[in-house]
Amino acid sequence: MSPDELDVLDANTAFYAAFAARDLAAMEALWAREAPVACVHPGWDALRGREEVMSSWRAILSGNPPRIACTAASAHVAGAAAFVVCHERLPGGPRLVATNFFVREGGAWRLCHHQAGPLDQEAGEAPPGAEA
Amino acid sequence: MSPDELDVLDANTAFYAAFAARDLAAMEALWAREAPVACVHPGWDALRGREEVMSSWRAILSGNPPRIACTAASAHVAGAAAFVVCHERLPGGPRLVATNFFVREGGAWRLCHHQAGPLDQEAGEAPPGAEA
Repeated sequence: MSPDELDVLDANTAFYAAFAARDLAAMEALWAREAPVACVHPGWDALRGREEVMSSWRAILSGNPPRIACTAASAHVAGAAAFVVCHERLPGGPRLVATNFFVREGGAWRLCHHQAGPLDQEAGEAPPGAEA
Repeated sequence: MSPDELDVLDANTAFYAAFAARDLAAMEALWAREAPVACVHPGWDALRGREEVMSSWRAILSGNPPRIACTAASAHVAGAAAFVVCHERLPGGPRLVATNFFVREGGAWRLCHHQAGPLDQEAGEAPPGAEA
């Protein structure tokens, strides 16, 4: 694994740590300030722009969000951008599959997009549908 | 809208055109060959690597995939990387929300990641859950 991939996985871990700790300041620091940001929470429509995205995190973190464990994370780096695909395990609940997209900003990897959605299929199983 | 944003939206349109036409050659040309690629079809586990991703497209396009219309697309460019968030409307079926990630490769915007998942919420409605 390359140093960049390790750094991206560290940033991904920090994202889930901020979520678990309901740490809004950490969450705000993790998201890009120069690059455009967006976010697709499971089932939600896409949120576009830092203000809208951070507003959603304020609402989520001030509520009673479930404890999420991030597993099966892999980092994919392309120059100054990267993405992580991973699973989000909810306590006793469904498993989600998520993508977190990062850009290099101020010498650090910052989030510019997150999308999570339901995972209906275990690895290796036949896919549940034929859509893209 | 910037020239880069227009180009990214063109690449996004080409992706859905290749899907609608079941054009595997066009689909293969649209995906990056140097950058790492991955794909999350709705409900599926993440597919990692070009071989696995293109194998999924071969299976999907050789089947009887639904006609998908891409709507509400917005492009977000950060240097040599970009992403589009959009809706995918299936005929008579559920609506999906999708993210397509692009990188600049060989002078063109090439796909390096796609994730689509169910959209339970119309814009402006209260979110259905509190997860990330």
